[in-house]
Amino acid sequence: MIGGEQLIVIAGPCAIETEELLKETAFKVRGAGADMLRGGAFKPRTSPYSFQGLGVVGLETLARVGEAMNMPVITEVMDSDDIPAVAEYADILQVGARNMHNFSLLKKLGRTNKPVLLKRGMAATVEEWLLAAEYILAGGNSQVVLCERGSRSAEKWTRNTLDLSAVALAKELTHLPVIVDPSHGTGVRSLVMPMAKAAIAAGADGIIIEVHPHPEKALSDGDQSLTPRQFSILMREIEPVAKAMGRRIR
Amino acid sequence: MIGGEQLIVIAGPCAIETEELLKETAFKVRGAGADMLRGGAFKPRTSPYSFQGLGVVGLETLARVGEAMNMPVITEVMDSDDIPAVAEYADILQVGARNMHNFSLLKKLGRTNKPVLLKRGMAATVEEWLLAAEYILAGGNSQVVLCERGSRSAEKWTRNTLDLSAVALAKELTHLPVIVDPSHGTGVRSLVMPMAKAAIAAGADGIIIEVHPHPEKALSDGDQSLTPRQFSILMREIEPVAKAMGRRIR
Amino acid sequence: MIGGEQLIVIAGPCAIETEELLKETAFKVRGAGADMLRGGAFKPRTSPYSFQGLGVVGLETLARVGEAMNMPVITEVMDSDDIPAVAEYADILQVGARNMHNFSLLKKLGRTNKPVLLKRGMAATVEEWLLAAEYILAGGNSQVVLCERGSRSAEKWTRNTLDLSAVALAKELTHLPVIVDPSHGTGVRSLVMPMAKAAIAAGADGIIIEVHPHPEKALSDGDQSLTPRQFSILMREIEPVAKAMGRRIR
Amino acid sequence: MIGGEQLIVIAGPCAIETEELLKETAFKVRGAGADMLRGGAFKPRTSPYSFQGLGVVGLETLARVGEAMNMPVITEVMDSDDIPAVAEYADILQVGARNMHNFSLLKKLGRTNKPVLLKRGMAATVEEWLLAAEYILAGGNSQVVLCERGSRSAEKWTRNTLDLSAVALAKELTHLPVIVDPSHGTGVRSLVMPMAKAAIAAGADGIIIEVHPHPEKALSDGDQSLTPRQFSILMREIEPVAKAMGRRIR
Repeated sequence: MIGGEQLIVIAGPCAIETEELLKETAFKVRGAGADMLRGGAFKPRTSPYSFQGLGVVGLETLARVGEAMNMPVITEVMDSDDIPAVAEYADILQVGARNMHNFSLLKKLGRTNKPVLLKRGMAATVEEWLLAAEYILAGGNSQVVLCERGSRSAEKWTRNTLDLSAVALAKELTHLPVIVDPSHGTGVRSLVMPMAKAAIAAGADGIIIEVHPHPEKALSDGDQSLTPRQFSILMREIEPVAKAMGRRIR
Repeated sequence: MIGGEQLIVIAGPCAIETEELLKETAFKVRGAGADMLRGGAFKPRTSPYSFQGLGVVGLETLARVGEAMNMPVITEVMDSDDIPAVAEYADILQVGARNMHNFSLLKKLGRTNKPVLLKRGMAATVEEWLLAAEYILAGGNSQVVLCERGSRSAEKWTRNTLDLSAVALAKELTHLPVIVDPSHGTGVRSLVMPMAKAAIAAGADGIIIEVHPHPEKALSDGDQSLTPRQFSILMREIEPVAKAMGRRIR
Repeated sequence: MIGGEQLIVIAGPCAIETEELLKETAFKVRGAGADMLRGGAFKPRTSPYSFQGLGVVGLETLARVGEAMNMPVITEVMDSDDIPAVAEYADILQVGARNMHNFSLLKKLGRTNKPVLLKRGMAATVEEWLLAAEYILAGGNSQVVLCERGSRSAEKWTRNTLDLSAVALAKELTHLPVIVDPSHGTGVRSLVMPMAKAAIAAGADGIIIEVHPHPEKALSDGDQSLTPRQFSILMREIEPVAKAMGRRIR
Repeated sequence: MIGGEQLIVIAGPCAIETEELLKETAFKVRGAGADMLRGGAFKPRTSPYSFQGLGVVGLETLARVGEAMNMPVITEVMDSDDIPAVAEYADILQVGARNMHNFSLLKKLGRTNKPVLLKRGMAATVEEWLLAAEYILAGGNSQVVLCERGSRSAEKWTRNTLDLSAVALAKELTHLPVIVDPSHGTGVRSLVMPMAKAAIAAGADGIIIEVHPHPEKALSDGDQSLTPRQFSILMREIEPVAKAMGRRIR
C-alpha cells in the first residue's frame, strides 16, 4: 500500500488532546487529501513533568475518530507491554526516534502482524537504521516503513537537520518504503512546505505532517504544526512535484 | 556508597561469555583493586545477527561469580519485562546509552528499590540526561548514578567523543554521583588510561572499565578492552591523580 | 542573473587537470545544458602531499576554455594575495567551505567588484553563514551567491550531510540567491541526482555539479563526479522538477 | 621549551582592549604563576559588526606589556599579509580554529622561523588537525604546538565540547607538544577549572586560559574569562594534579 505510484500523506496532531479537536483535525486533513490520521497517545517527552499523552483513552479516541472519518490511523508504541493495546486500535504502529535503538521493542514488533513505521534515531547512521529495521524483519514481520525525521546537529535555527540523502540511500539499498517527517525534521512551521517538496523530489514514498487547528495552544510541538489551512495549501503545492516525479497524491 | 571520598572502580568484560572466563576476570580485577564486577547478559547490539548475550543464564553466572568473589555486580537491563530478573541478580541495574530515552523503562525503574546506573545517550544533551534521571527519581527511586560514556561525533579515530565537561556540569547541577566509562567513551584501548585519569581529575566519582583476559577473542568490544595486566597498571597509575583530587581508591 | 526564473547550472571537474580534459568536459556539459564552467586551480587539500592544483596556469587554462566555449567560469580563491589573479580570469570567485570563517579573505572580497560564491562552512550554523556573507556585503560588494554543500556529521555512508532546510531558511531570511552542491554535499555519485532534484524542490536557485570524463582517474573527488553522460541524464530529469517549481533550465 | 617536565601556562584576556587593562592582567597572572601572556589584536568575529580587535596598535601594546613584565607573548594571526607584523611583535603566532583549514596561511607560516600554536578546527578530525600541522612542518618550520579547544556539538550548555581524547591521541601519534584551551573549550567559567585539571591528567603539556579583571565588561568572551583571583586559585589547584602526572608548574 505504501511505496507504489501513489504517495501516502499522513496528517494529524502531535498528541491526541480531545476527541473534538481530533475530529476537527481529521475532518479537515481528510478534506485536504490526507490518506491517514496520526496522533500520539503515548508521548515520549524529555521531561517527566511534561504532558505524557492520554494513554489507552487516547488510543480509543483515535480509533473512534479514524473509524468515523474512514481513515486508517497510526500512533506510537513506546513500551513492549503496550503492543497488544496499540495493535488493537492502530493500523500502523510507530516506533519513535528515541526508541529506534530499543531492540527489545523491535524484536517484539517483529512478532506482530501489524505494519511498523520505524523512525530514524536522532543520531543514528543509515546503517544502524537499516539494521534496526532488520530486527523487525528478522522476527517475521515484513511490513516495515522507514521514516526520516532529522538528525541532531549544532544548527540552532532548526530542531533537527533533515537528512534527505538518507531517503535516497535507503531507497537505493532496501526494498522498504521510506517516508519523511518534515515537521519533526525541522521543528519550524515555515520549513515544512519546502522540505515536504524536497522529500518527494528526493524519492520519498510519502510524508507525515503535524496539523493542529490552533498550533499556539497545542500541548506539544505547536511551533512545527501547520494549521488545517496551511496543510491544504501544502497539499496543493506538492502535487506538481509529485507529478514531476511520476507519482500522484491520492 | 558511590560519591564519597572513595572512588568506585567497576571492571569486567563487556559480555558474560563463560563462567570460567568471568571468574578469571573477576579474580584478577578484584586483585588489582576493583570494587565491583560488570558483565552484560542482555546486550544491545546494532545488528540482530550479532551475539545478543546469554540472557538469564548470564545473570545467574554473574550473580554466582560475584558471590564467590565477594563483589557486588552490575548488569544492563534492556526491557521492562526483564526488570524483576535483573533486579534479583544484580546489585546495580544499568540503563545503556541506547535506552536513555526509553522513558517507559525509566519510569518502571523508578518503582524498583535497586540503584540504577544511567548512561548518557549517544547524542543526548546534558539537560536531557538529567531529565532522564528525573524520570527515575520522580518514581521514588533516589539511587541514581549518572555515567558519561561519550557522544557520537564525526571523529573517525575514536568510537565516541568522551565529554568530560558533562561530568563537571552534572556534578555542579545535581547531587547525584557521576562516573565515567572511558572504554565505550573512546573505543580505543590506548586511550582508556589517559581518559580514566582525566575523568578523575574532572571530578568523577568513579570509572567503569572493560577488562577481558583475551581481548582479541572477545565476543564484543575487544578493541577497547584492557587485559587484566593493563587494568592493574591503570589502577596503580590513577592512584596519584585520585590523591591529588583528595580522593582515594579503595 | 542568478536567482531569477531560470535556474543556474554550473558543471565541470573538481580540479583543472589538463586543457584537453577541461575542454572535453566543457564541451559536453555545455551540450547537456550547463550555464557555467567550474574547475579548481587552487585546491584546499587536507594533506600537504596531495595534488594542490595547477595555480595560475590552471586559471589561464580555465579562462581560455571558458572563452572558447563561450561559458562564464567560476573557480576558488584560497588566499587574499590571489584575489587579483583569480578576479582577472574568473567570472565568479568561489570561497570554499574551509575558508568560510576566513574573515580577512571575506573582507578583501568585499572590496572587489566580482560576484562571490560563498560556500557554507563544514560545521557552520546558518546564522554564521549569513554573517560571513555580511562580511562581503558590508565591504560594498552586493553580488554574493550562497552555496549549501553539506555539513560534517557522524554518518559514514556519505561524505557530508546535505542540509536542504538551510536553503529554505536562507531564501526566507535573505534576498541572496542560494545554490546547492550535491556533489560535495553527499560525496556519493548515485546520490547526486536525487539531491539535485530535492535541492530544486527546496527552492534552490541552481546547482553546481562535478563532472569528469573519467571519474576513476580524477586527481580529486572521483567518487562524487558524474560522467558527462550521467550529467546529461541529470539535466533531463531535473527539468520536470524545475517546471513544477515554476522555474526553468536555460 | 614546551613539552618538557614543566607545564606551560598561558594566560591573558581574549582581546587586547587598553594598555592599562592588559598590564593589570599581566601583572596578576604573572604573580599567580603564568609563563606567557596571551591577548588578541586581530579577532575573528562571527559578525562584521562586532569588535574586530585593535590590529597593529594592539600588537604594539602586547609587545610593550610583555617586555615590561618580562613575559613572552602569543597572539593570533588571521591573514598571511599580517605574518610579518605579528612575527615582529609576538613570540608565538597563533592560528585560530577558524583558520585551521586556511592552507595558504599554514604554508606561509611554514616559511617563518617563529613557533606556531595551531588550534584544532571546530569540526576537524584529529587526522585533519595533524595534517594541518604537517602543512607548517613541511615548509621547514618544526616549531608547532597543537592546541585542543573543543569541537562543535549539539550540547547547549557549553559553547564547544572539549575533546581530551584528542590530546591523548595527538601525544600518542606525534612528537609535538599539545596544550588545551578550557576557556574556549567550554565557554563556561565554572568549567574552566575542572577541565584544566582534566587536561593535565590527560597528558597535556600546558593550558591557555582567558583572564580578565572585569569579565562582565569584557569586549569579547566575558562568560568564559576567569578573574585574576579565580586564575590564582586555579594555579594552586592544578599543581597537585601536575605533580601526580610527574610534571610541574614553573
